[in-house]
Amino acid sequence: MINFEFNLPTKIIFGAGEIKRSGALAARLGKRAIVVIGQGSVKRHGYYDIAINSLRESNVDFLTFEGVEPNPRSTTIDRAGVIAKKEKVDFLIGLGGGSVMDATKAIAVRALADYPVWDFVRGENGGRPRPIIHALPTMMIPTIAATSSETDSGGVITNWERHEKCAIFSPHLSPKITIIDPGLTVTVGKDTTADGAVDIISHVLEGYLSGDPNAPIQDRFSEGIIRTVMEFAPKAIDKPDDLGARSNLSWCASIALSGIVNSGRGGNYPIHLLEHSISAHYDISHGAGLALLIPPMMRFTGKAVPQRLESLGRNLFFRTKINAEGTIILFEKWLESIAKKITFGEIGIDNAKFEAMADDIIRMYGGNEGCIVNPRPIYKKDIIDIFESVA
Amino acid sequence: MINFEFNLPTKIIFGAGEIKRSGALAARLGKRAIVVIGQGSVKRHGYYDIAINSLRESNVDFLTFEGVEPNPRSTTIDRAGVIAKKEKVDFLIGLGGGSVMDATKAIAVRALADYPVWDFVRGENGGRPRPIIHALPTMMIPTIAATSSETDSGGVITNWERHEKCAIFSPHLSPKITIIDPGLTVTVGKDTTADGAVDIISHVLEGYLSGDPNAPIQDRFSEGIIRTVMEFAPKAIDKPDDLGARSNLSWCASIALSGIVNSGRGGNYPIHLLEHSISAHYDISHGAGLALLIPPMMRFTGKAVPQRLESLGRNLFFRTKINAEGTIILFEKWLESIAKKITFGEIGIDNAKFEAMADDIIRMYGGNEGCIVNPRPIYKKDIIDIFESVA
Repeated sequence: MINFEFNLPTKIIFGAGEIKRSGALAARLGKRAIVVIGQGSVKRHGYYDIAINSLRESNVDFLTFEGVEPNPRSTTIDRAGVIAKKEKVDFLIGLGGGSVMDATKAIAVRALADYPVWDFVRGENGGRPRPIIHALPTMMIPTIAATSSETDSGGVITNWERHEKCAIFSPHLSPKITIIDPGLTVTVGKDTTADGAVDIISHVLEGYLSGDPNAPIQDRFSEGIIRTVMEFAPKAIDKPDDLGARSNLSWCASIALSGIVNSGRGGNYPIHLLEHSISAHYDISHGAGLALLIPPMMRFTGKAVPQRLESLGRNLFFRTKINAEGTIILFEKWLESIAKKITFGEIGIDNAKFEAMADDIIRMYGGNEGCIVNPRPIYKKDIIDIFESVA
Repeated sequence: MINFEFNLPTKIIFGAGEIKRSGALAARLGKRAIVVIGQGSVKRHGYYDIAINSLRESNVDFLTFEGVEPNPRSTTIDRAGVIAKKEKVDFLIGLGGGSVMDATKAIAVRALADYPVWDFVRGENGGRPRPIIHALPTMMIPTIAATSSETDSGGVITNWERHEKCAIFSPHLSPKITIIDPGLTVTVGKDTTADGAVDIISHVLEGYLSGDPNAPIQDRFSEGIIRTVMEFAPKAIDKPDDLGARSNLSWCASIALSGIVNSGRGGNYPIHLLEHSISAHYDISHGAGLALLIPPMMRFTGKAVPQRLESLGRNLFFRTKINAEGTIILFEKWLESIAKKITFGEIGIDNAKFEAMADDIIRMYGGNEGCIVNPRPIYKKDIIDIFESVA
């Protein structure tokens, strides 16, 4: 285990029906808020009304910013940030999926700044981004089990002009309060439920394969989350209103990147880094991109650390003896069982941009060495090979 | 899963050597502190000097309160609390094992009060205890892997005149900062290391057996902690300076009662409640008492929830088929492998006080029904039977 600092400053309220406490909880953060939402599904499903009625009951004044898109655009965030600044709100409420919550965090930064939010993501000409010195407080109400944005200190936003999708991190981005109400996720469609499940698994699998191999508690927790997701995602897909299955997925999602699993193990998120480039070029869902990449990345990294995949296989599938490839094959079968596509061809993407995407990835995340940090370092040629292996 | 609130306000610094940062971290909490220690082992091993030298370097002024005993006495806490009040310290530092940290929390309450600390534990004549409305901030530096006091909001203190050992809980008791330096635990003796291991296991096993059986993530995390402790405690006992083994035990200890494992599962701590009475009468170590009680309590509760012990056995011992008794027998063998005694006779206690202890337990924790809350409720007669079964 490696030395670490762990701090989870978010107060978590978990359980079906807890959205009704939005107002009372929000009142702890201030008197005037912006409610940030996506493209209308929270209105259609009635969640928006429950939340704002609760805000009114607790005398919390609010505006609504509607229209955060999937893979939220920096331009959208700038627009909302300017409104938050002008309207002098005390805090923000993110009601929606990962895109809405990530956008809410970025708006919280932009609301206290005089610069476009992208300045805090990437500097001009490869220079350093501006430091995040403060942000408005936020309360999150996730409507999907996937991202962990509700418990972590990061957010991912997209500069569509540049086809760049990047994460920002700061302790100032940790939500003050998160209401995880699994009842809100029963309206999530089958495909999006499956995407979320893949995202959760990736959040703990990447550290498992790329981090310190001598961190057994972190490994057991990761396996526990992966096993639980593999068991309950098919149930939630099969029966969307299975609240038990939804609750397990929601809690897995929120723990996955809370710090409790990966602290002391370290590692990197190479699968996420590769995926960000795909969804910055094609605007596919994050989970769809991850499902494509997890098996070939397991094969690539497994060449350097086969014993990690053997350990994973033993603990996930209760086999006393299983090799790395056996683990990967069983995982692929599970992906197919929840109808995830595992080749680019199946989701209608040809190899035309493989090289351009590989260039983007190395430019954005390759550092001085021109490769992604991993037990087996990932160079541009490797990325193209990985893409081609699932073309 | 049941609805819950989760909040872990403690900033955790983990890793060998981190004690050297005591001063810089303490300075965040104030300028003047009391360093609370036990009966001298932290001085003998040099940990006290490292900590106070670091405090001096960071210009943190301090007094030292030495002499907290195992099963810390309310009278000792009152004495320290009066000093803290008189000396107008800003915060407290608990450097030691569970007794020292629990005492430090209770001193933090007493330092801001005008009443004996026992008033906050149990009311007179069965009345309500005084509410804890505030406490001094604390920083903890555990020297043993066992208690979780470094990350939880409770403490256990003993009224020796009454032979009562009781817990206090309050959000005000959560440490602000905890430095978990596994390097400090290499001097812990074999027997105390084993006691700590049993305590950690009990902290997650009790909720496993008594809480909501439909909380799979919590179960996987519990099994992960138990497996890790069962693997690394024998290594730390065999080779006390095995820092990897010590690190795993330390992190297991701190996570066990941090809230992350038991939130959403609920349940009770019946084994701890029974044990508190034994160590309030005989002043044996907490771990020694728990080791006696875990197997017979598994048998007692297993009659009501055999499937929980089967699930535990499958996941701990990698058996596809194992019954409740099989799980208990394998666990007993493990206890014996780390030289824990599993009968009262072996630790020199006869049955003379079995009835008196059972009376104490029911009086203190029996509530209106006169029994301990458990899937199979525990009445006075049951307690005596459980004791007799391991006489």
